[in-house]
Amino acid sequence: MSRATLPFDTITIERSSDVPVHRQIYDRLRSYILRGLLPPGSRLPSTRDFAATLSVARNSVIAAYEQLLIEGYIESKVGFGTVVSQALGRSQSKLQSTLPQRSPELSQRGAMIGNQPHFGRSPRKLNFHPGYPETEAFPFLVWSRLLARRARSRSEDILTYFSFCGHPDLREAIAQYVAVARGVVCTPQQVIVVTGAQAGLDLLARTLLDPGDTAWLEEPGYIGARAALLAGGARIAPLRVSEDGWSLSDPELPAPRLIYITPSCQWPTGVIMRLEERLQLLELASHYNAWIVEDDYDGEYRFRGKPVSAMQGLDSSDRVIYVGTFGKTLFSSLRIGYLIVPTALVEPIDRALAITGQFAPLIMQGALADFIREGHFATHLKRMRSLYAVRQAYLLQLCTTQLSEWMNVPANESGIQLLGRFRRPFDDRCVAQEAALHGIDAQPLSANFNSDEPQHGLLLGYARLAEREIQAAVVGLGEVFHTFDAQHTMSRPRRGKMVPQH
Amino acid sequence: MSRATLPFDTITIERSSDVPVHRQIYDRLRSYILRGLLPPGSRLPSTRDFAATLSVARNSVIAAYEQLLIEGYIESKVGFGTVVSQALGRSQSKLQSTLPQRSPELSQRGAMIGNQPHFGRSPRKLNFHPGYPETEAFPFLVWSRLLARRARSRSEDILTYFSFCGHPDLREAIAQYVAVARGVVCTPQQVIVVTGAQAGLDLLARTLLDPGDTAWLEEPGYIGARAALLAGGARIAPLRVSEDGWSLSDPELPAPRLIYITPSCQWPTGVIMRLEERLQLLELASHYNAWIVEDDYDGEYRFRGKPVSAMQGLDSSDRVIYVGTFGKTLFSSLRIGYLIVPTALVEPIDRALAITGQFAPLIMQGALADFIREGHFATHLKRMRSLYAVRQAYLLQLCTTQLSEWMNVPANESGIQLLGRFRRPFDDRCVAQEAALHGIDAQPLSANFNSDEPQHGLLLGYARLAEREIQAAVVGLGEVFHTFDAQHTMSRPRRGKMVPQH
Repeated sequence: MSRATLPFDTITIERSSDVPVHRQIYDRLRSYILRGLLPPGSRLPSTRDFAATLSVARNSVIAAYEQLLIEGYIESKVGFGTVVSQALGRSQSKLQSTLPQRSPELSQRGAMIGNQPHFGRSPRKLNFHPGYPETEAFPFLVWSRLLARRARSRSEDILTYFSFCGHPDLREAIAQYVAVARGVVCTPQQVIVVTGAQAGLDLLARTLLDPGDTAWLEEPGYIGARAALLAGGARIAPLRVSEDGWSLSDPELPAPRLIYITPSCQWPTGVIMRLEERLQLLELASHYNAWIVEDDYDGEYRFRGKPVSAMQGLDSSDRVIYVGTFGKTLFSSLRIGYLIVPTALVEPIDRALAITGQFAPLIMQGALADFIREGHFATHLKRMRSLYAVRQAYLLQLCTTQLSEWMNVPANESGIQLLGRFRRPFDDRCVAQEAALHGIDAQPLSANFNSDEPQHGLLLGYARLAEREIQAAVVGLGEVFHTFDAQHTMSRPRRGKMVPQH
Repeated sequence: MSRATLPFDTITIERSSDVPVHRQIYDRLRSYILRGLLPPGSRLPSTRDFAATLSVARNSVIAAYEQLLIEGYIESKVGFGTVVSQALGRSQSKLQSTLPQRSPELSQRGAMIGNQPHFGRSPRKLNFHPGYPETEAFPFLVWSRLLARRARSRSEDILTYFSFCGHPDLREAIAQYVAVARGVVCTPQQVIVVTGAQAGLDLLARTLLDPGDTAWLEEPGYIGARAALLAGGARIAPLRVSEDGWSLSDPELPAPRLIYITPSCQWPTGVIMRLEERLQLLELASHYNAWIVEDDYDGEYRFRGKPVSAMQGLDSSDRVIYVGTFGKTLFSSLRIGYLIVPTALVEPIDRALAITGQFAPLIMQGALADFIREGHFATHLKRMRSLYAVRQAYLLQLCTTQLSEWMNVPANESGIQLLGRFRRPFDDRCVAQEAALHGIDAQPLSANFNSDEPQHGLLLGYARLAEREIQAAVVGLGEVFHTFDAQHTMSRPRRGKMVPQH
């Protein structure tokens, strides 16, 4: 038994600290033991002596010793008192000295997932980032009341999961909604509630693809889908989209296992898939026996006529999976989206969700079901559709009068963003960087190109901007373009690289 | 131009239906077109004639035609009226006849993920399933008030994501809590909020492992961790655990990239890892440069003394990732868990979460932060600790007096379940099946074995059961055991197979 080498009276207790005295003593002794200052076998003072030395209550020392005893740092030796555990010897010293202190690294897959391009957002900028709805007009009082009611209910159905596919009320409400609003044909059992559309895409990539499988992704196409497909190990083949539609007859396209499309309002071009293209795509998918993932990310917003029905309703071979979200109709931090899957997928997806944890809290699901069933959702959607139509018209008008020299901004019958294509060979990442300096967040079009030489322009999400903000943003963009004109500079972007936005 | 072959007067409108008349007309015509009953070029009646035939308002027919026009099913021919679109020709007929109607299948990975063993729960049974806290005592009124307050606030921080790692208030509250309660050393920035511990395990397996990498999993060990590791493509090597501790010196263990452990209360044995084992494990992990994932799934519940501090606090080489959850301290459908990660992982995990969508709604996060900061969490935890201690003592007493012939049920200083090991060679899956017939849900011990010949017993999660329910469940189990005694039957289980529980 070695004697403690540490003068215990050098330990100081901070009486003004929030940390309880016994915890301070425990922390100090534990640290000394781990750092080797109190080697195994070192004898600790008696609780009485130590309390007197520190001028603290003896109970505080007893509590600290008890915890150290429970955790194995010290032991009690009959007839000798309390000593640092002998068992610690080897490991303790080794840990302090000879071990390499390098940290492990991410896996290759992890690094790939963690390095996908992303667009940071800034709370103080005029936010043109597409995909964010207006929240000013959202009935938060109603929402708060519905949430509180479900939380108070204490009923078994919001406390325990019997299915990972979602709350029965919400699955039913969604099934009814998509049937009427989107022409989707399904039973409530085919509805899978997930923590947002992105989670749904991630889940589908993992359960429908094996690493190395080919997926068709629209080119240009949605960054979030690309990231989910890559994270699932897919090889991506570009299904090219232009104003003329989808290049479904492209002979270079390899046989796919999955086809990701945004037929109701193509991201980012805004093109709507014609019925004959839809039928041809179903035919192709059937030929290859491939899945179709139909991302209907903002199919609800169509300003003239009714929204175009979803492809899912045309499918008679159980290969179309419909992806919907409330993030663009209510608010993005709600984190509730849904998949409509063929019946055969329900059971395996339920099990997969038990592993991936991509399911939303039941209280929120219950409240959302009430929000839909009590008519608040339909009312809100109708109001937003009118509001966004006005905002789009205003933005279009300002772009035409003030920015048409630099950007061609066609109207969009649907969606909550406009695409402005540059008329001059500016690099849109540089323009976006310059715009950020003017307090404007906008997404460069080129970021949506995965395979081809990118086109340049800006995606202008106008849903969240009031008219005065739209005006300020357009004026700001005009200044940015003037700067670029003045510089006469132009650098061709390197393919596939992202310039950091912040 | 072919004439329509369809007698339009056979279309019937259900006036009592909830579906609007124009939608019924649209649905009927669309279906006829897609089924080839109205071939391309077929002429439709004028809206006036059709309205008269159906005895409906002409506006209803106009609305139906407009939608069919928008969606491309019909077109307007000058001087001829409305016809089924010619463009549909080829695809439409093909879709109806020659195409194979087989559906695609899950990927191999998807099938593996979807086939992991699971335990269904039944709302009407005495629920011994481990891991579920008592919810009767949860202050739902407080919770409902906090939720409503955050929802009403409309503040930017609960409406938009600036970081995917979680709400700043909650990250701070968690960092403070784990420092005091669990000896975890971290800044709020190291806290990553996820949709439950399971989501955290899934995320870690995907970002820290590549397919084929070796992970050590305790044997017996937690099913959910096994599923997450397998879903991430890991090869699993068994780190054997017995009452004597962890077999850290097992020469057959291959070099790991990740080590999953439950040191505070080993799942399912309840063994607590000794300090010297913890130090040895850190040494081993350092030697292999492996990650340690420390799942502290119910480290909060220790009935004698204070909870044992987490391993994370012993780590000086940034390799321990701590996994915590509120699912066992508050209620499971809350779906909020957290990871404490080394600083270098924060940024890549933030990006990964943007892709996987495993993040909790901000309103819930904000309300939970308030719940912790206003002291409700500490109060609730203290009450539950007392309640569970009483329940464990009661269950132990009844098991000793009534079931000791068949099961050895030692006390557990920590956790919210007891492990009963069979004294006779019963197959625990058969016992669990029989118990289910007696209205009792319990998990067979053997399900937690991944590599070795399983031991048999039952995991008894007592947290949710009131004393009268504990009594009824023990009586029920006694009857089950009597049945097995009477049958004198015993079938050795096949390794690794699960008998369906329902």
